[in-house]
Amino acid sequence: MRISPTNKPIVFITMGDPSGIGPEVIMRSMASPSVKGLAIFVIVGDADVMERASRSFRRGPAVHRMKSAEEEIFPEEGVVNIVDPGPPLKEARPGVPSDEGSAKALECLAAAVRLMRGLPDSMPKALVTAPLSKERAARVHPGFIGHTEYLRDAYSSKLVTMVMVGKNLCVVPVTRHIPLRDVASSLSVDLIAETLRQVSDNRALICGKKDARIGVCALNPHCGEGGKIGREEIDIIAPAVRKAKKHYDNIEGPVSSDVVFYRAMKKEIDIVVSMYHDQGLAPFKMVDFDTGVNMTLGLGHVRTSPDHGTAFDIAGKGIARSASMEHAIRVAVRAVRSS
Amino acid sequence: MRISPTNKPIVFITMGDPSGIGPEVIMRSMASPSVKGLAIFVIVGDADVMERASRSFRRGPAVHRMKSAEEEIFPEEGVVNIVDPGPPLKEARPGVPSDEGSAKALECLAAAVRLMRGLPDSMPKALVTAPLSKERAARVHPGFIGHTEYLRDAYSSKLVTMVMVGKNLCVVPVTRHIPLRDVASSLSVDLIAETLRQVSDNRALICGKKDARIGVCALNPHCGEGGKIGREEIDIIAPAVRKAKKHYDNIEGPVSSDVVFYRAMKKEIDIVVSMYHDQGLAPFKMVDFDTGVNMTLGLGHVRTSPDHGTAFDIAGKGIARSASMEHAIRVAVRAVRSS
Repeated sequence: MRISPTNKPIVFITMGDPSGIGPEVIMRSMASPSVKGLAIFVIVGDADVMERASRSFRRGPAVHRMKSAEEEIFPEEGVVNIVDPGPPLKEARPGVPSDEGSAKALECLAAAVRLMRGLPDSMPKALVTAPLSKERAARVHPGFIGHTEYLRDAYSSKLVTMVMVGKNLCVVPVTRHIPLRDVASSLSVDLIAETLRQVSDNRALICGKKDARIGVCALNPHCGEGGKIGREEIDIIAPAVRKAKKHYDNIEGPVSSDVVFYRAMKKEIDIVVSMYHDQGLAPFKMVDFDTGVNMTLGLGHVRTSPDHGTAFDIAGKGIARSASMEHAIRVAVRAVRSS
Repeated sequence: MRISPTNKPIVFITMGDPSGIGPEVIMRSMASPSVKGLAIFVIVGDADVMERASRSFRRGPAVHRMKSAEEEIFPEEGVVNIVDPGPPLKEARPGVPSDEGSAKALECLAAAVRLMRGLPDSMPKALVTAPLSKERAARVHPGFIGHTEYLRDAYSSKLVTMVMVGKNLCVVPVTRHIPLRDVASSLSVDLIAETLRQVSDNRALICGKKDARIGVCALNPHCGEGGKIGREEIDIIAPAVRKAKKHYDNIEGPVSSDVVFYRAMKKEIDIVVSMYHDQGLAPFKMVDFDTGVNMTLGLGHVRTSPDHGTAFDIAGKGIARSASMEHAIRVAVRAVRSS
């Protein structure tokens, strides 16, 4: 892929499951005044599906269907480039997922990674992924757990960090999709310190503030009460925070989790690093359910995604809202600009 | 203690640590228009300390210092009864905690329990406890963990439940002050089902709604994803919810904790039952930090307390706010009226 010189970032968007709401929320976003013109957009998806989605509502965006991935892209305001990596789908009915559709969704993801890796490092770029069904994807690609893990492997990344960016809070869980009973034994000084390093290096990218204040959650109630209610604060979290503070400012912790989110809401803390999924995500979704964006750090570039699923039940009905996808795109563009 | 016939509830208030902010926030509350007249108030505390607290600000409440606990109480609007169970404190300086003060605080707590148990069951009553320092109390009364556990033992209660009542949320943690790594193994079908029974029986008392909707948190991320991320939802929580639903309506769960608090904020759920301390308390304090009241169920009567500590650092300076204590008193009165 060649791209004519431009000062705009390039945002690749993968289609996601063609039977979900991905195609329509992408195309609605492309037509939205708050997104249009922010970047050069390259949608990696089934061209027919994407064009159909575009025609499904009035004032769909102008589309430039690329003949091949090698074609040169000319940045043109408001024109959406579509590159289709594979044979067209035989059938893709909104709301009716199929193995063929899941396979194409994964093909598009692989193609987006290929295309992005082919661009010069210096070119400002980001990836936005529309939702696919993990369960269905795992049927055609055994071992598929989710976008984050797929991209970690595709980029041979040592550590990827998942960041939830919302209007009210920014939250980073150190551990993610593991049972609660395994959380304590999954924590280590190195894992927490490395996560803090990745978060500290990317503060501007996460929340637009270079000197963002990071609050690190305790694991146990009342911060462990000096070891009386668990020792992980003393043995693991405090040493990790000390290690990180040798190199970075504005990090504090461990802070009791029933204090840190309150302080974050008061804007005393900008980014909360939680020890496990629900510790961060429950407070986050409580106040940022509709405005949450999932961001992945640790790849060659930023990746964001809207914070909703395929929503097969409402796909193709013209009622899916594109607010979260637009938010994901705007956060990706902001991140590229501040990195 | 004898009390002349009245249709008002009787609220006992324990002084808490005499060197903390307890005495002053109690007396400020007694003078507050939103509290005055709500109930017959009996303060169990050091009489000198309480009177000094009352004189420390303008418009302190009228005080009736009882000669003994046997004296009859005549309900009189706006007059606060003070009963002192023991020899007066030799010294009690605000901000300077002492063993003598801690011992007196515990004596007052014991006396309040004695007085309340001496009243007929049919008499509407509640207990409000001002804060004491657990660490300091444990020095004079080894084994003291906190009000909740003390009262459980004093009332020989099989199960006490801690409820956090706020303006925005009501939250009930099934397990409380234990390390996170012990949470999963501390859960059982019986413990959760019994907690749900206690909560269901007391819905009106907790939030003023007899048909309050109860949402039960999952333990693992995404509700365990059908057993892929932990089996406690399948093996423990769902069976407990089924058991409770045999006898009670309006209970649902397990619900992923990154959904249940969002729905509670939207008023689709009135009471959230969480599996562990921070799962409930982190979201709760985020939105109800200043308006939270701690309520204990499973005693012979309701007990509430403000959601702050002794605050030795500001005691006696006239700057402690009584909003949380007033809230605790109002919630106690509401609970008595609806039980």
